[in-house]
Amino acid sequence: MTKTTIRLLMPQWQGGNNPNYSFGAELLAWLAPDNDQPLINVPVQAYDGTPLENENGMNGRKQLLEQLKSAHHIIDAHKPDRIVMFGGDCLVEQAPFAYLNERYGGELGLIWIDAHVDLVRYVGYDNGHTLPLGNLLGEGDEEFAKLVKTPLKPENVFIAGLEALTEQSEASQRLGIAPIESETEMIQRLGIRTAGTKELLNSTESIKEWIKESGIKHLAIHLDLDVLDPKAFRSLLFANPDVPINYSPEGTMQIPQLLNLIKELSEETDVVGLGITEHLPWDSIKLKNLLGEIPILNK
Amino acid sequence: MTKTTIRLLMPQWQGGNNPNYSFGAELLAWLAPDNDQPLINVPVQAYDGTPLENENGMNGRKQLLEQLKSAHHIIDAHKPDRIVMFGGDCLVEQAPFAYLNERYGGELGLIWIDAHVDLVRYVGYDNGHTLPLGNLLGEGDEEFAKLVKTPLKPENVFIAGLEALTEQSEASQRLGIAPIESETEMIQRLGIRTAGTKELLNSTESIKEWIKESGIKHLAIHLDLDVLDPKAFRSLLFANPDVPINYSPEGTMQIPQLLNLIKELSEETDVVGLGITEHLPWDSIKLKNLLGEIPILNK
Repeated sequence: MTKTTIRLLMPQWQGGNNPNYSFGAELLAWLAPDNDQPLINVPVQAYDGTPLENENGMNGRKQLLEQLKSAHHIIDAHKPDRIVMFGGDCLVEQAPFAYLNERYGGELGLIWIDAHVDLVRYVGYDNGHTLPLGNLLGEGDEEFAKLVKTPLKPENVFIAGLEALTEQSEASQRLGIAPIESETEMIQRLGIRTAGTKELLNSTESIKEWIKESGIKHLAIHLDLDVLDPKAFRSLLFANPDVPINYSPEGTMQIPQLLNLIKELSEETDVVGLGITEHLPWDSIKLKNLLGEIPILNK
Repeated sequence: MTKTTIRLLMPQWQGGNNPNYSFGAELLAWLAPDNDQPLINVPVQAYDGTPLENENGMNGRKQLLEQLKSAHHIIDAHKPDRIVMFGGDCLVEQAPFAYLNERYGGELGLIWIDAHVDLVRYVGYDNGHTLPLGNLLGEGDEEFAKLVKTPLKPENVFIAGLEALTEQSEASQRLGIAPIESETEMIQRLGIRTAGTKELLNSTESIKEWIKESGIKHLAIHLDLDVLDPKAFRSLLFANPDVPINYSPEGTMQIPQLLNLIKELSEETDVVGLGITEHLPWDSIKLKNLLGEIPILNK
């Protein structure tokens, strides 16, 4: 039987508390190659000028929970074999990957391609997009984690492209932002494997070993675009030309390396999930706003 | 009677000898606000991997001439009162502005918002996009200029945002590229008014005086995005992250200044033409190419 694949467009912005994520999602879906995969919009409350409320340590918690449930309803109505997710902030990944882990009997493999671990809450930076991987593992935020029916096995998770945590901690502490648990300790406690961009440039052997040893048959790929070098790809939170200061470690991966990695993974396993997140196309946002105000274009 | 406006999408790349211009045009049209202005595609020969031939001092001359004629045929079939043109390289401006000058009895005003004058051919850089303003004035390239039935009056042209020509000349000479006539001398010979970005930031009075003294009633606006500061808006030829060296003067205008200028012009005159050109969205091009190769998106 042919496997069914659906594409979801989830222009969620509340998880990063930045309305620009919504347009980033739309542009991403528009850039994707045309084929017969249906594209379904997950309803998201658009930014209406009202600042998000910090609800029990998370900005826009209620909206985020509602949107997560909407995504699950849509996925459950289709019961696909494969899901492509266009975000939006990173938290869009929870519903498709939680579903896929159930769909594949709790044995889903997940490669988290990201400069950041997305495992824990940061006190002083109360945005839900720091948590999706934590939630999927049954950690993270309690209210979100309990919506993951079958948490992923930590040994089935690999974090690729991770950037130095020490610098991040130092920078965070300058801002009064600190993780509730040290990320390094949590990775060790759970036994999650990781590899940085430089290591993977030399060899992807550690990933292939992980696939073999964990017996990964079905794999989901999380791609946070911030794994990329912001000097070469600038449509990122950390490459905003108008806000040049950044307290978080920047990605260093180049696109050819990323593509090679994804192709290798697609040969080694059956890739059943792909989520692409954190697309912030600053130039296109500016240009769209400009065109929206030019009189001859608005007659 | 209601005035009719058409939008043209002309993904011409041959004038800059860079296939990336085609996607830049498409994205630009997609970013424009929706309304009932019809969007018409001007046929352009897509890049098929064959390098353009240098034909009598211009790369891809034959293709460019054919495409110019196609644009005229489409415009003549619609006979609009107003035209919006989404390019593509700068040379896309010739057909709509030549038509509009005829349509308005040879009295069209034209503001050329650009870091460059687009008046003359550069020996050693044989790309047609250095010439559109020259052609529209009956100068430029003979074969192109003779397709302009009613050349614009030089006194009806204003170049806004022009960057220092001396630096450009110096840089060009290092590369063995030199204009066939000094641009400064040509501007003086024709009596074209100009103002740089800094001058216009202080006051746009010189433009208002020009409109008044020349009796401009109907105005076309050429917007070459390279008038913008490439540090703040990076989807420009001069902001290619993979080709950081630039021998041409960079723009310094910021988007709010540009928008104010366009709004002022729209209040002072009847804007009947707008062309937007030289959009090179590097990140979106890379992302589109990446998505086009990811297996799960191409099943």
